[in-house]
Amino acid sequence: MSELYRQHWTHPGPFETESGATIESPVTAYETWGQLGNANAVLLTTGLSPSAHVASHGPEDEPGWWETMVGPGKSIDTDRWFVVCANVLGGCYGSTGPASIDPKTDRRYRLDFPIISLRDIVGLQHALLEHLGVRRLRAVVGSSMGGMVALEYATMFPDSVERLVAISASGMTHPFAIALRRVQRRAVMLDPAWRGGDYYDQGQPAAGLSLAREIGTISYRSDLEWTGRFGRDWRDGELFSFDGRFEIESYLQHQGEKYPQSYDANSYLYLSRAMDLHDLSRDRGGLAQAVSRITARPLIIGVESDVLIPPFEIEELAQAFADAGRPADVRMVDVDTGHDSFLLHPEMFGPPIQAHLGE
Amino acid sequence: MSELYRQHWTHPGPFETESGATIESPVTAYETWGQLGNANAVLLTTGLSPSAHVASHGPEDEPGWWETMVGPGKSIDTDRWFVVCANVLGGCYGSTGPASIDPKTDRRYRLDFPIISLRDIVGLQHALLEHLGVRRLRAVVGSSMGGMVALEYATMFPDSVERLVAISASGMTHPFAIALRRVQRRAVMLDPAWRGGDYYDQGQPAAGLSLAREIGTISYRSDLEWTGRFGRDWRDGELFSFDGRFEIESYLQHQGEKYPQSYDANSYLYLSRAMDLHDLSRDRGGLAQAVSRITARPLIIGVESDVLIPPFEIEELAQAFADAGRPADVRMVDVDTGHDSFLLHPEMFGPPIQAHLGE
Repeated sequence: MSELYRQHWTHPGPFETESGATIESPVTAYETWGQLGNANAVLLTTGLSPSAHVASHGPEDEPGWWETMVGPGKSIDTDRWFVVCANVLGGCYGSTGPASIDPKTDRRYRLDFPIISLRDIVGLQHALLEHLGVRRLRAVVGSSMGGMVALEYATMFPDSVERLVAISASGMTHPFAIALRRVQRRAVMLDPAWRGGDYYDQGQPAAGLSLAREIGTISYRSDLEWTGRFGRDWRDGELFSFDGRFEIESYLQHQGEKYPQSYDANSYLYLSRAMDLHDLSRDRGGLAQAVSRITARPLIIGVESDVLIPPFEIEELAQAFADAGRPADVRMVDVDTGHDSFLLHPEMFGPPIQAHLGE
Repeated sequence: MSELYRQHWTHPGPFETESGATIESPVTAYETWGQLGNANAVLLTTGLSPSAHVASHGPEDEPGWWETMVGPGKSIDTDRWFVVCANVLGGCYGSTGPASIDPKTDRRYRLDFPIISLRDIVGLQHALLEHLGVRRLRAVVGSSMGGMVALEYATMFPDSVERLVAISASGMTHPFAIALRRVQRRAVMLDPAWRGGDYYDQGQPAAGLSLAREIGTISYRSDLEWTGRFGRDWRDGELFSFDGRFEIESYLQHQGEKYPQSYDANSYLYLSRAMDLHDLSRDRGGLAQAVSRITARPLIIGVESDVLIPPFEIEELAQAFADAGRPADVRMVDVDTGHDSFLLHPEMFGPPIQAHLGE
């Protein structure tokens, strides 16, 4: 149902990645909302897990992952803006990734897929926009990995972006986040069903991917939120047992178990690594030098309780913009819901984004 | 070498645990420093991983895990205090645990070992002290799990403790810490070499236990520390690969790999669960009611950057003491090194502990 509005575009010929590898004619799956008009295109860039299905396309359609934010009359108003969202290169919702068939071998790429960077994701999305006839974006807007991608987009193609919104994203990935993602990847790889990435005939390494998702979920929320929401409430089973569960355990287990039903384990590994490699300053002489390339008007939003992108990383990014002589509008949202707050509190994120796009 | 000074005491007959199970004649391995005199006994309670070897017993002996803090003339002065430290019930350094032989079956307990609580650990250590002729402790001092044990000790045996020092410990375990420990246990259990706990003939589930330790290590330190210490420094291997390593990855890998060389996977599971079950208020009508049993003079030390026992949990515990009409001396240490700071900054923890014991 949510795939009804999915469109596909095939890049003509080989696409060269930052590492120097090439991917033959990669496909990008994407969706659009609204009508392309005069300077009204907005690119939404996704986090690791969401698909391009940001919002429903009508009452009969499934809700999207940012349904509260995107739609007619909403903060990102599809009556006004032509909104584009693409599934990222390396992902598993219709765009070319490790589960895709390599036309050179007629086999799935598996771990033969090249290691990609967020710059590769940006490069392909930029080519898609050219294909769609979008020569200049009103804005690029993203959260989490999407925020990193938005920052890279505005850095790589400054002439193509008027406004930038980066939510819960840093200018470069710091070691705490690398550590958290390393253990998630190791969880996938520890599952014997992963089989070195060659599992497609046998089925997903569900146990390992679920565990990875549980670890990720811990980093997406916060201690205070969970203390208030779950406390020490007991769910079921014997107290003095390994099987008995606190409510927080039941919650995590649910988050973990549903994940392999929609997400490919190898895609997870590739995008996880791409985020580790995120560094605006790479080959650009420093963070402020990189940021000085950006001409888009920047809005940066962070969350006080975010443990994955803690406030000091938002400050670092804001400082880079200041050092580049291009001060950003910086908003710190003071809620307990951590990294995922942009999904949970549209009332706090919507107004500043709406104002930034519209002004 | 470090076992030269290890002594063993066997509990006479069955030991009944909080769950109602019994353990037949459990052994406790322990070490002592100094001479028992008049009201000069100090019990040090350990965290999850350390053995009873807190400090060396002389220049020829191996350093202990709190060597900087414990010894002649040091903050916990073994010239003045008779210091006792025991390996916990359920552990793997000589005290009875899941790797021990069950006298009833002549086989290792494995997962037939009963689920234990910190109250069981306290009960057995109290019996050890009675055996040693210690009728009243000058103080019980512990950090991390040892801090929880110290709090339980002072609650269960108020007439036996004059002073209490609880470092980086909460009055009850909160859901964020339960979540972090759940994923660690799941990592062990995901390793096929764990074999449902029945691995002793085949060797440790090293990959799973290493991964668990890596996850734990993330929770023991802090983002700011690692950003300053490692940044995005690259260690070795290709940048665009899964094998290439940032310095933080190399550090985590080292922490993980050495752990199964000294620690038993099943002990890890049992003590991890015992910490989840930590709750001074259990069967006592509430946290303040539980704390009101304590007559020992309390010193509580927390760390601003601790993500495992964050400041709000220290405040909660302090509030419980205040509500019980027994205000604690509360110190918040402002360093970037997180939960493990008591191991890394003896200059900050030593003076208040020394003063609290001596005054």
